[in-house]
Amino acid sequence: MLLNAVKIGLLGLGTVGGGVANVLSGNRKEITRRAGREIVVTHAATREPPTADVDTDGMTVLKDAWAIVENPDIDVVVELIGGYEPARELTLKAIENGKHVVTANKALIALHGNEIFAAAQKKGVTVAFEAAVAGGIPIIKAIREGLAGNHIDWVAGIINGTGNFILTEMRDKGRDFADVLAEAQALGYAEADPTFDVEGIDAAHKLTILASIAFGIPLQFDKVYNEGIGRIESIDVRYAEDFGYRIKHLGLTKRTAAGIELRVHPTLIPNRRLIANVDGVMNAVLVHGDAVGPTLYYGAGAGRNPTASAVVADIIDVVRALTTDPGNRVPHLAFQADALADTPILPMAEVETAYYLRMQAEDRPGVLAGVTRILADQGISIEAMMQKPPMDDDEALPVVMLTHRVREAQMDEAIRRIEALESIRGHVTRIRIETLN
Amino acid sequence: MLLNAVKIGLLGLGTVGGGVANVLSGNRKEITRRAGREIVVTHAATREPPTADVDTDGMTVLKDAWAIVENPDIDVVVELIGGYEPARELTLKAIENGKHVVTANKALIALHGNEIFAAAQKKGVTVAFEAAVAGGIPIIKAIREGLAGNHIDWVAGIINGTGNFILTEMRDKGRDFADVLAEAQALGYAEADPTFDVEGIDAAHKLTILASIAFGIPLQFDKVYNEGIGRIESIDVRYAEDFGYRIKHLGLTKRTAAGIELRVHPTLIPNRRLIANVDGVMNAVLVHGDAVGPTLYYGAGAGRNPTASAVVADIIDVVRALTTDPGNRVPHLAFQADALADTPILPMAEVETAYYLRMQAEDRPGVLAGVTRILADQGISIEAMMQKPPMDDDEALPVVMLTHRVREAQMDEAIRRIEALESIRGHVTRIRIETLN
Repeated sequence: MLLNAVKIGLLGLGTVGGGVANVLSGNRKEITRRAGREIVVTHAATREPPTADVDTDGMTVLKDAWAIVENPDIDVVVELIGGYEPARELTLKAIENGKHVVTANKALIALHGNEIFAAAQKKGVTVAFEAAVAGGIPIIKAIREGLAGNHIDWVAGIINGTGNFILTEMRDKGRDFADVLAEAQALGYAEADPTFDVEGIDAAHKLTILASIAFGIPLQFDKVYNEGIGRIESIDVRYAEDFGYRIKHLGLTKRTAAGIELRVHPTLIPNRRLIANVDGVMNAVLVHGDAVGPTLYYGAGAGRNPTASAVVADIIDVVRALTTDPGNRVPHLAFQADALADTPILPMAEVETAYYLRMQAEDRPGVLAGVTRILADQGISIEAMMQKPPMDDDEALPVVMLTHRVREAQMDEAIRRIEALESIRGHVTRIRIETLN
Repeated sequence: MLLNAVKIGLLGLGTVGGGVANVLSGNRKEITRRAGREIVVTHAATREPPTADVDTDGMTVLKDAWAIVENPDIDVVVELIGGYEPARELTLKAIENGKHVVTANKALIALHGNEIFAAAQKKGVTVAFEAAVAGGIPIIKAIREGLAGNHIDWVAGIINGTGNFILTEMRDKGRDFADVLAEAQALGYAEADPTFDVEGIDAAHKLTILASIAFGIPLQFDKVYNEGIGRIESIDVRYAEDFGYRIKHLGLTKRTAAGIELRVHPTLIPNRRLIANVDGVMNAVLVHGDAVGPTLYYGAGAGRNPTASAVVADIIDVVRALTTDPGNRVPHLAFQADALADTPILPMAEVETAYYLRMQAEDRPGVLAGVTRILADQGISIEAMMQKPPMDDDEALPVVMLTHRVREAQMDEAIRRIEALESIRGHVTRIRIETLN
């Protein structure tokens, strides 16, 4: 039984939009064999004319995106413009017009998802966003459906490929952050303005979404604690290795009795963990459920075709649910809209983790005694400590230590007091440690 | 909006059945928040009384499984008996009675899936089987839905935890196969009769299912080439490490121009690949799609709660699709039933791969020349070769080599001729190599 073709309108025909057009046309036969009906891009809106490698055969290419969301013949609108506006207004208008929407726009969902999903819920349409997190990895589907029987304990992910590329290069080649960043920009992995990637904003967008579907809470981007990789030095990467750890830029959300942790920061991970071995631009997300235990999902987190893979899967899902009673569809945030929880997000000061600390200590008796006394006063136990040879011509000695778990507020106070010691030069470098088991 | 409760009948209340009962009751609140309605086990059939750790509160426990499949009040039958009969007859009867079925039974699906799905298709009901492959990892969902936009190129998986535990112990501790197997049996990882695990039959069942959902072909268990791990020696594990490889028991299915490869055998994998680092009883499946590239899915492949996680996810999926027009549901084998392909399965003799070879050569001039001449005659190029010190009191020298890719038939002939050489003692050990990139 072959039902009517489903008509798709693409907003955007650039990197990802072009990829979606190409995957839908290149795999048309197989997609039809799967979906049971044809899926055809009838219209696409783009400001720039599409490049020659995009298959626009049979497609009406327009400049005006509004003409697509207002076109009554189009069943599904695919938003690939990116950014907040006009993406938000176009999405809301498409919903208002009764269209299903597929988007790859993590910023839009993280900041305006609550509003968008409420509108979609009211109208009985679906907004699908698999491509918004970890590119081609079907992680939204895995958490929202594949692990639906679980009480999810925590989710930890390498969800920014640029950051992971930089950290991998720093480790493999002992290179410095700024140096690798420049190369990543030249290779096209990093944007000309790398703020979103290296300062963790992109990862925070994705983590916001992961936390909501894992725990059934509203999207709360403004509550994410966010720290980039710009202050990681190659020496920290090397010292971490000496202790048996890798440094990864991790998005982590965890349920605790006091509230939900929601944080993005560089993290030491034991190097025997599978996720510690995810290198280069690849992404991976580790999900821990009470029944299933740890599960990991790995793949390309960005790029034309991997992102298109996720967008097309969403389109097929939307097509399959066309005849499903809206109340029976998979809810946008995994939990029924009227069953979201108001569990508080834990302020970073309340979060408990272990730490890697590095400081420059003058080489004279009693210096370490002063440091360890401050730590002891704050209830912080030291798990390991190494004194390193001085760097360059600096006569101060790098002291590196790993601590046991302690509340962040206590560590803040300890660091404030250590930095005030005369025998300690400059700032204390602090990187959090997670064992992920 | 809370719809009516969905009534579940469990066939089997042992390890997995008890796990399903416990997960459904333990996570009842969260599952209801996700599914939008209550999911309640009203009946369970079991020959043995359930153990005290199984929550049977509110459940009618019966001895007679037929009373469940014939009960008009039950919406979904969950088959957790295992084996071929009466699982097959019960499943077919449940379908005939218009019930949806969820099963964890890989043997049943691999051998009788075509018949069962045809019956379900005719009746407009769903048979879900996520737990049949790789336990708690949502791999069926990932391939069938998450990667639905892709032309899948190949799938390779560590899909038998017992075998992986044995190989991991052999590597980590240099122990012998029989020794580790005995321990695995004592720990409960391996069955008293370990045939299904160590001879690859269990993996072949799962690979059969993976191939069908990846390529849209009927289930063809009888076409799987199957080789167990019983002949791997700890010396091979060590020599493989010397070349930078790990030995894993892999199920592999690949699309080639000549046909589909479908094979289970020990495999050398470069040790820098993520899947080469999946250790112990854990499972992982690597899926390569044309758009997404490589993706990997990792988790517990067996055990009470991980398997229950997959079964409960299937139950929730079935509940969500209750109001979906049957023609719009995800097809059992990922492709519409009338759109399955008759792509031939490639006989093993036609499969092309690289090889690890180990032989015992007498220590005199010209021996290697004889071996390399035979390989050259068969068009086999050598990539690397190492002569090893003699083992024990044996004066013959182990010679280990890696070859480039060649058709299996040619390697068979080469090995036949090498084994006929007077200067080569005993059998040639041959292990296939896959780079998985």
